[in-house]
Amino acid sequence: MNLLLKEVRRNPMLWLLAFVPMTFLAAKFKPEAHTLLFVLSVLAIVPLAVLLSHATESVAAKTGDAAGGLLNATLGNLTELVIALTALRAGQYMLVKASIAGAIVTNTLFMLGASFLLGGLKHHMQEYNRVNARMQAGLLFLSAVALLVPSTITAADSVAGTAFAQKLSMGLAVLLIIAYGLGMLFSLKTHRELFVSAEHTEHGEAPWPMGLALATLAGVTVLVALVSEIFVESVQKAAETFGMTPAFVGFIIVALVGAAAEMAAAFSGARKDRLDLSVGIALGSASQIALFVAPMLVLLSYMIGPTPMDLQLWPGAVAMILIATLTAALVTNSGRSAWFVGVLVLMVYLVFAMTLYLLPPRVQ
Amino acid sequence: MNLLLKEVRRNPMLWLLAFVPMTFLAAKFKPEAHTLLFVLSVLAIVPLAVLLSHATESVAAKTGDAAGGLLNATLGNLTELVIALTALRAGQYMLVKASIAGAIVTNTLFMLGASFLLGGLKHHMQEYNRVNARMQAGLLFLSAVALLVPSTITAADSVAGTAFAQKLSMGLAVLLIIAYGLGMLFSLKTHRELFVSAEHTEHGEAPWPMGLALATLAGVTVLVALVSEIFVESVQKAAETFGMTPAFVGFIIVALVGAAAEMAAAFSGARKDRLDLSVGIALGSASQIALFVAPMLVLLSYMIGPTPMDLQLWPGAVAMILIATLTAALVTNSGRSAWFVGVLVLMVYLVFAMTLYLLPPRVQ
Amino acid sequence: MNLLLKEVRRNPMLWLLAFVPMTFLAAKFKPEAHTLLFVLSVLAIVPLAVLLSHATESVAAKTGDAAGGLLNATLGNLTELVIALTALRAGQYMLVKASIAGAIVTNTLFMLGASFLLGGLKHHMQEYNRVNARMQAGLLFLSAVALLVPSTITAADSVAGTAFAQKLSMGLAVLLIIAYGLGMLFSLKTHRELFVSAEHTEHGEAPWPMGLALATLAGVTVLVALVSEIFVESVQKAAETFGMTPAFVGFIIVALVGAAAEMAAAFSGARKDRLDLSVGIALGSASQIALFVAPMLVLLSYMIGPTPMDLQLWPGAVAMILIATLTAALVTNSGRSAWFVGVLVLMVYLVFAMTLYLLPPRVQ
Repeated sequence: MNLLLKEVRRNPMLWLLAFVPMTFLAAKFKPEAHTLLFVLSVLAIVPLAVLLSHATESVAAKTGDAAGGLLNATLGNLTELVIALTALRAGQYMLVKASIAGAIVTNTLFMLGASFLLGGLKHHMQEYNRVNARMQAGLLFLSAVALLVPSTITAADSVAGTAFAQKLSMGLAVLLIIAYGLGMLFSLKTHRELFVSAEHTEHGEAPWPMGLALATLAGVTVLVALVSEIFVESVQKAAETFGMTPAFVGFIIVALVGAAAEMAAAFSGARKDRLDLSVGIALGSASQIALFVAPMLVLLSYMIGPTPMDLQLWPGAVAMILIATLTAALVTNSGRSAWFVGVLVLMVYLVFAMTLYLLPPRVQ
Repeated sequence: MNLLLKEVRRNPMLWLLAFVPMTFLAAKFKPEAHTLLFVLSVLAIVPLAVLLSHATESVAAKTGDAAGGLLNATLGNLTELVIALTALRAGQYMLVKASIAGAIVTNTLFMLGASFLLGGLKHHMQEYNRVNARMQAGLLFLSAVALLVPSTITAADSVAGTAFAQKLSMGLAVLLIIAYGLGMLFSLKTHRELFVSAEHTEHGEAPWPMGLALATLAGVTVLVALVSEIFVESVQKAAETFGMTPAFVGFIIVALVGAAAEMAAAFSGARKDRLDLSVGIALGSASQIALFVAPMLVLLSYMIGPTPMDLQLWPGAVAMILIATLTAALVTNSGRSAWFVGVLVLMVYLVFAMTLYLLPPRVQ
Repeated sequence: MNLLLKEVRRNPMLWLLAFVPMTFLAAKFKPEAHTLLFVLSVLAIVPLAVLLSHATESVAAKTGDAAGGLLNATLGNLTELVIALTALRAGQYMLVKASIAGAIVTNTLFMLGASFLLGGLKHHMQEYNRVNARMQAGLLFLSAVALLVPSTITAADSVAGTAFAQKLSMGLAVLLIIAYGLGMLFSLKTHRELFVSAEHTEHGEAPWPMGLALATLAGVTVLVALVSEIFVESVQKAAETFGMTPAFVGFIIVALVGAAAEMAAAFSGARKDRLDLSVGIALGSASQIALFVAPMLVLLSYMIGPTPMDLQLWPGAVAMILIATLTAALVTNSGRSAWFVGVLVLMVYLVFAMTLYLLPPRVQ
């Protein structure tokens, strides 16, 4: 607790933690103030994400960059999973699907692009392990393709049978989860040396003891879950106030908030010239959304949703995911980065965001 | 003949050769038993493919991996060409087109993925010549794109004029065959050093003498042609019995059976840690389907088909071919492979197969 | 002037300069002879392009390959910008859009493919700096994607609101020009070492003095502008005479003529085994069309066009640009080239051209 307080004193952003109780109080006493609740819950998730990131870095410090990256990705995706589950229970399937697609695109383009930009502003030219990056980009592309194939083929052939989509999504979900399990076996057991970075740079801050780190991880995850619930309840109505379409909210806002924890870790890695860590977090996290979060939501929709959810994404989302994963593959191909690469990757993300913002709501 | 018998005794799969005469007998006396004929002809093609592969390896042993790969690809595609010609004569254009698209995808994803998986289960990490692999993946991508451009553009712009499609397909066929001829000149004459692997590993079995190998090649090819005819006649009706759609039959079944010979060679190469051979067979064979088999079928359709055939593929097939060739390019980019890469490539293939299996028949 | 005359005597193609005054005379006295004016203006632009290229090479000789490449690309794109502006003023928006898309595709596929082929016919295997080529191909891909995202997403979702397209195009144009400005900062200031080639091969001809080179650049650019005007006025009617569709004219003819200057430089680089120069010109020029010429035309359409122009391209153009940029990325990936690579890249371009030529006019 003492260490935690010292952390708060050192990192001014943690003062935002005050928004966590404020969010709960506002939700209790002003349940109709959607815009207020939306703003409060976003402000509350950010410091929780930072705390999560510090705790994760403490654990990661004893394991290695890529294992730490895996840990980061899993816990960051826990946030996304919790948000999506809340939306699923409320039957908001469009929001769930938009947040799945958005999480893949945001992790790939925004997190990667901003890491390159932030790292590039500090370091003239950054080198990273290009063989690992290529393998991870390849895995991400394959994961995304496996997720998208049914949407692509049925869209291309203009099929739209609900029973067909349902059966296909179910089969796909099972296949993806098997692939995810095999991927764990691969990265944690048979080929773990691929995912351990050779050199560990020194951190300015001393890592927390393991016990405190794990306790913080658990406690903060619960808080994220509770705040997420308020966030999901308020986000739709608040978005209308700001003139945002549902696709924009799910794709951009939910995805950015859900990935806040991972972003903190990826950006800090980039500033410390450990781009391997940043690339690992960004691409690994996006892969896990495709291989684990998306199929889990389909399977869980049979249990907790009003009706089963399928995995058919709308054509624009398919195009954006394919473009994002191809971009990641091409951009990480050289194993070198400079600030302008980050600018261009962010530009593609901005163009996506602008298009979704301007898109008339009826087509989503 | 003596050597051949010794081969049969050593390789238990060659006992399946007994199905060759059984297929002919069944076709003569039970021409209506479609399901039986389908099963018998598949079982008969497999050992013929294995024999073909052994004979090819014997010839390849005296030339070099890549020239052997080329030989394998040509002869394997002979099987596919014979099957497609039979279907063409019967006017089953949907089956022909599905088998062209399926052959490219199966060679690229299934053969490559299974080679990576089988090789990776035996060897921890496999390295191969990544410059050659990249050039071959680039050639495959360009071949596929050239084949697909008309389908893509006319689909994107929703044009569907028969006269237009016919003229375009004819011009395209001529261009593709010119490219194929120049490709032969390139790989066999001006740049043959690119396609000869540096090191030749020892085979356990002694290679057959050249005469026997060539005689086996010729004789077995004729047998494959005869069995293929029975296969094509029975496949459609038998497929209905198993609840398969025509697209699934052409794309998956015909393609898998047609490529059996090459697969045997590619998988054996992967197990012997000669992934250069496997990659060369898989990508080279897929390129040859696009540059040679497909345009040949268009030109031959003017002579032997009931009406001329065009090269317009349905949009789902275009999407699958583009995804498959991009996957090959991204996956062979690093020049390294481990078992999980194979799993993910196979996963994409499985998702394709599942989608085609579940797709309602009317849309194909 | 003396040096200029010596140049004309040495390079027989410069005798074509005689067509420049002939074009002006014909335009004055035979303004209705569209086919004649079309042929004359094409013949007049070619030698102007060659002069421009010589002058540019003289300046480039004192700077370095990539800075020279940048100079070439900017001046070559000036030609394209001038042609497009003339078409814009005449309200021929289809021609403008087709020439933007065509310029990207022609620079990427035709210029790159022909450079590989011409270089490969003289040199057995050409190596070039693959890290720079990869970064440039990545930048081109990102630029093209940023340009295409709105067209892709709205096409995929079948939206077609004029107000929406207008707002989106305006926002996109501003973003692209910001990216272009940052790109200049990157290549000319913070990371200029990336764009300077290490070794300078000797030219046969002595470079012109700086003053003459700059004066020639300025004067010839004005001549190109004047001839372009006659070209644009005559091209549509002349095309009909030759049975060409408007899409074909804009995409292929205007793009080829507009890029003549850069092609001369790129091909001469390839013959001299300086493929770095060729790749830099081809990819850099295509990027600049996407990031600078296209958005400039949108912004200028508010001032000089009859109505504002949007950036929505038709789906076939989107497909061709994506295929072209992906091809460039895959093909430059290995940093090696041989003649057959050029043949296949040109083949894809030929298939594009053939499809556009045969495409019935109503769909464009």
